[in-house]
Amino acid sequence: MRVKIQVSYDGTGFCGWQVQPGQKSIQGEITAAAKSLTGEDISLTGSGRTDAGVHALVQTAHFDLNKPFELKKIAAGLNFYLPPSIRILNAGRVHDDFNARFDAKQKTYTYLMYKAGTENPLLINRALKIDNLDIKAMRAAAAEFAGTHDFSAFASSGSEVKTTIRTIYFCRFFKKGPFFMLEVSANGFLYNMVRKIAGFLIAIGQGKRKKEEIVKFLNEGGPAKEIAPPYALYLKNVEY
Amino acid sequence: MRVKIQVSYDGTGFCGWQVQPGQKSIQGEITAAAKSLTGEDISLTGSGRTDAGVHALVQTAHFDLNKPFELKKIAAGLNFYLPPSIRILNAGRVHDDFNARFDAKQKTYTYLMYKAGTENPLLINRALKIDNLDIKAMRAAAAEFAGTHDFSAFASSGSEVKTTIRTIYFCRFFKKGPFFMLEVSANGFLYNMVRKIAGFLIAIGQGKRKKEEIVKFLNEGGPAKEIAPPYALYLKNVEY
Repeated sequence: MRVKIQVSYDGTGFCGWQVQPGQKSIQGEITAAAKSLTGEDISLTGSGRTDAGVHALVQTAHFDLNKPFELKKIAAGLNFYLPPSIRILNAGRVHDDFNARFDAKQKTYTYLMYKAGTENPLLINRALKIDNLDIKAMRAAAAEFAGTHDFSAFASSGSEVKTTIRTIYFCRFFKKGPFFMLEVSANGFLYNMVRKIAGFLIAIGQGKRKKEEIVKFLNEGGPAKEIAPPYALYLKNVEY
Repeated sequence: MRVKIQVSYDGTGFCGWQVQPGQKSIQGEITAAAKSLTGEDISLTGSGRTDAGVHALVQTAHFDLNKPFELKKIAAGLNFYLPPSIRILNAGRVHDDFNARFDAKQKTYTYLMYKAGTENPLLINRALKIDNLDIKAMRAAAAEFAGTHDFSAFASSGSEVKTTIRTIYFCRFFKKGPFFMLEVSANGFLYNMVRKIAGFLIAIGQGKRKKEEIVKFLNEGGPAKEIAPPYALYLKNVEY
């Protein structure tokens, strides 16, 4: 049977979602937990990779089990074997055609920032400290990313993709409580795309870039070199 | 000259504020940083101790320097030597009579909780997961702690104090965003007092205790055995 899981994790200390030789990955930890729980060597497919240090509020993945296993016990069973920094929120049976990667229709990421003179020790590896930025300019510029564009200028090389065209449904920069948040939702993301968008918006807030350059980069290609650090990035949700 | 500092820290991995032989403490780390920065062996007095795992948004402390040192460089200088989990927010010169412990007029603590089926890996060592509790009952009961009382029933033994009478200015339980918070402000706290109050309120939320028992414990003594874990507790502020 095919099982769909929703996973939340603190990406700190992991090399990212994807298994890497000799390193601790989210995928590797869940695969090992499934082996301990069921005795099976599963092949775990996530909705996509997340970089080292990037967190997930809700990541989605699927795997197959050959032998019967009580569905209700999968989430708690995996959590028993997993480190506390990775939690299975739920597990459910899906049709054998379901694919966590290819069926993902919309993904939303959040980039978390806060203004402070001194770094907040309780937000280490959680949020980016920003200085006095032109928040108005950032808010106005964020909207420029929305729409269907070739985002190759806002991607790092290193992954093979058929097309660099993506549709951003919304790209919003706003204040929420003590935080400044960037929320980007799209039908898919290129490698490092959210971190590059966040980095570019911060450069706009610093007066080093202008809003007009976004359109120029989207039309004429890049690369835009700015990239925001991974530890403030959260995969918020994947929709199917 | 006497220097007053405001300090923020992530208490995870520390034995608490107070120096303990062979363990990592906040007091010990700041004392060592001051030695590296100024060459002097300072005696650091905090507004009070915090337990192992307890955090501080703003703790206050003082120390004396015998030799002149540029005041503006103290906060950044200490932060250079301190681990990132301890940050000096500011440092200023105060009158030689100022005492961070004895001059503290009001302290406020926050206890952070959230409702969830599965623990949030991003809130490990930061907040307490609670199940379905009677929130209304907890809100009503919290107010019972306010006022001037003998709080010995809501304290652990182990510290010598002249009196166990304290005045709680407010004790509020409320929802804020995805969190449930307990905020307690008093002219001083006994050992484990906030954690005991939080533990008792949670027991009320679970239906294991009744609001009326608070008055009974305050009038007739205790001890109340419930105690909430340290990692969800934050020293929010100290007023002078």
